[in-house]
Amino acid sequence: MLKKILIANRGEIAVRIIRACQELGIATVAVYSEIDRDAMHTQIADEAVCIGPAKSQDSYLNMQNIISATVLTGAQAIHPGFGFLSENSKFAKMCEECNIVFIGPDAETIDNMGNKSKAREIMINAGVPVIPGTEGAVKGLEDALLEAEKIGFPVMIKASAGGGGRGIRVVKEKSEFKKAFETAQTEAKVAFGDDTMYIEKFIEDPRHVEFQILGDNFGNILYLGERDCSIQRRNQKVLEESPSPVMTEELRKKMGETAVKAAKAVNYRNAGTIEFLLDKHGDFYFMEMNTRIQVEHPITEMVTGTDLLKEQIKISSGHEIAFKQEDVKISGHAIECRINAENPEKGFRPSPGQIKALNFPGGIGVRIDSAVFQGYIIPPTYDSMIAKLIVYGRDREEALNKMKRALGEFVIEGVDTNIDFQYKILNNRSFIEGKYNTGFINKEFNL
Amino acid sequence: MLKKILIANRGEIAVRIIRACQELGIATVAVYSEIDRDAMHTQIADEAVCIGPAKSQDSYLNMQNIISATVLTGAQAIHPGFGFLSENSKFAKMCEECNIVFIGPDAETIDNMGNKSKAREIMINAGVPVIPGTEGAVKGLEDALLEAEKIGFPVMIKASAGGGGRGIRVVKEKSEFKKAFETAQTEAKVAFGDDTMYIEKFIEDPRHVEFQILGDNFGNILYLGERDCSIQRRNQKVLEESPSPVMTEELRKKMGETAVKAAKAVNYRNAGTIEFLLDKHGDFYFMEMNTRIQVEHPITEMVTGTDLLKEQIKISSGHEIAFKQEDVKISGHAIECRINAENPEKGFRPSPGQIKALNFPGGIGVRIDSAVFQGYIIPPTYDSMIAKLIVYGRDREEALNKMKRALGEFVIEGVDTNIDFQYKILNNRSFIEGKYNTGFINKEFNL
Repeated sequence: MLKKILIANRGEIAVRIIRACQELGIATVAVYSEIDRDAMHTQIADEAVCIGPAKSQDSYLNMQNIISATVLTGAQAIHPGFGFLSENSKFAKMCEECNIVFIGPDAETIDNMGNKSKAREIMINAGVPVIPGTEGAVKGLEDALLEAEKIGFPVMIKASAGGGGRGIRVVKEKSEFKKAFETAQTEAKVAFGDDTMYIEKFIEDPRHVEFQILGDNFGNILYLGERDCSIQRRNQKVLEESPSPVMTEELRKKMGETAVKAAKAVNYRNAGTIEFLLDKHGDFYFMEMNTRIQVEHPITEMVTGTDLLKEQIKISSGHEIAFKQEDVKISGHAIECRINAENPEKGFRPSPGQIKALNFPGGIGVRIDSAVFQGYIIPPTYDSMIAKLIVYGRDREEALNKMKRALGEFVIEGVDTNIDFQYKILNNRSFIEGKYNTGFINKEFNL
Repeated sequence: MLKKILIANRGEIAVRIIRACQELGIATVAVYSEIDRDAMHTQIADEAVCIGPAKSQDSYLNMQNIISATVLTGAQAIHPGFGFLSENSKFAKMCEECNIVFIGPDAETIDNMGNKSKAREIMINAGVPVIPGTEGAVKGLEDALLEAEKIGFPVMIKASAGGGGRGIRVVKEKSEFKKAFETAQTEAKVAFGDDTMYIEKFIEDPRHVEFQILGDNFGNILYLGERDCSIQRRNQKVLEESPSPVMTEELRKKMGETAVKAAKAVNYRNAGTIEFLLDKHGDFYFMEMNTRIQVEHPITEMVTGTDLLKEQIKISSGHEIAFKQEDVKISGHAIECRINAENPEKGFRPSPGQIKALNFPGGIGVRIDSAVFQGYIIPPTYDSMIAKLIVYGRDREEALNKMKRALGEFVIEGVDTNIDFQYKILNNRSFIEGKYNTGFINKEFNL
């Protein structure tokens, strides 16, 4: 087993990783930016190294400093968490070259899956269903329009290097195409420095259903059920649940085995996620693969009884996964609400500042993954997620009631949060009935 | 289902009950003493009624006021929690007479089990093994000594009305008997107003292993595995775990079926606990039955996947238990540490006062049942337990490591606590090996 791990992240995921290490008896090294000197992850790790000023570019994205901190403290491995350097193949490669274990897949896999067009090609060759669209990038506006007509409207225009909802446009008819293509391309150029675009069939009212994958160095690749992440605001997940309200045993097996096929196509190792769009007819399409642990991983842990962080560490320590596909049983129901310091009344504007009073919900079936505490000052520098509230019930109804109960207990003063907004989602009839898709928040809340 | 429940308790168990009600959509009425005006249970219930001054006798033990509050608010039922009026048959009878559902067994059962000699008689008649001893009360010192010699030393002298470790003496040889008997009798007279005594065989190095029972109005009585509560300081439980480290499938079945037999002997209804002494040879003896929910019920919830509070409420609503004995599966391992505001350095003296800073542990497999918050003033009036820290792991080793990790995260400032003491227990070799008995704390810590 690895003996010392450096955590190249901050916030709740850094705390999550440190907790897993502590329970495995592994020494931990936190890295922190100047503004995170008193952050929880800095405090609870065995060692902590300052890697630069607050700005991410200078600290949590500063590969040189992170590698130096690793060498300096004698850590054998780096866990990148999510965001920051977690899907940066250059960083994974640097780790390999410095003989540091990067807890994740190899640089080549990250590269292949990070490029949307390339990933799509690989999936088509592997026989994984993808959304009908151009095979690779389009050459320009004219070519794009030709392809769009071939696929049939509505279509989506997407940036090859895209992510986070940027560089994406839906076009319902031909007349709107030119303008949409040009603005998407400009946006992509600005955001990613790359204006390579491709065209896809637009799937109406799809659900975002993703499968958790685990792969080891011995060729074992398993799926651990799905997460329904259709509750999104501007392509950002807000609330996730597992199982999906529309899942059947049969469909889970079909999608799960397809997810394994997708992961096998890139000899996937460690934890990863295959994101699918699932349409009303039960047809599903590969969207992308996330080559890291996800924010919403806890709901999978609750319904499968696994600890995904520990599995990641064991895999990177060279262990074979200790269970088989047939051992993975989904039981009960889990929901996660992302609690953000933001103001839904003011366009979800981030609300940094000091937490004056704090009371987390507790009791049976309630899990809190967070790195904040009373008196903590949420810096304006990073993302606004301050806690993940996860509940587990024997069935969906119990989980829903538990989440409502838990949100009611959540007290936080000093900053604005989306707690009331989450409560509204929980009380929405379509949500309660499980009848929702990725357009839910836009449709129900006009957001 | 019951529609409105009054909770005749305070602290974490009141909060626990309110949470269960909220998740079931049942309205709640809290009662509070003057000093508990700002307590959490007072705040989170739908309604709250002041029932008198701080002193328990005037408020939480004030039957008239509690019944009045119930009638006044239109609550259909009273949940007594543990302690206070939970095992008071007179109160249960008053509820029956006022047409209020008492969430627990009937008054007669409470009476029968509350009297140790009577309970023993019933168990002997039912064929449940009891500790060799006098059949009923002894007549006085002379008779007591005669019986002690018949049973054979070492013996225990116990008060029939006893509880909480008072009115109990162990006598190793004849010469010590007279003095021990007389002091125990005096203690019993003072504590319970009743100096009826009985004599039992003293079991050396026993474990305290108790079985959770659920019974409904349809004659179904089930057992939900065991709890090992051998880690005690002066007969007060400190840390509990489930399963017991020495339990086998075979022994669990045998003890569990005996526990059901014991409960059936009194037509038991609702949640209850059969406490056994388990000796080194795998022989076990009925100690007593607790006719209420226990402090340590969460560990049973974790390993069986049930919600015992909800089961209690459903049973009292007239529902049949929805599962069968063969559906009860024990999986994983749970540990509970009772976190008390007390100072182990000063004889575990209670440490009331204001909580200046508070950070509860969190993350995967950690459950907090508590009613305190930052700024809360722990009154000197009631018991010193301020939180129950419960962890769940796939096996005992994971649960132990998780508890150590969680205790390390627990921050509380302003009052003294037993957190470090709990940490010492977790790091004790005998404890780690599961080789302990009720004498553990005395032997290992000289307490």
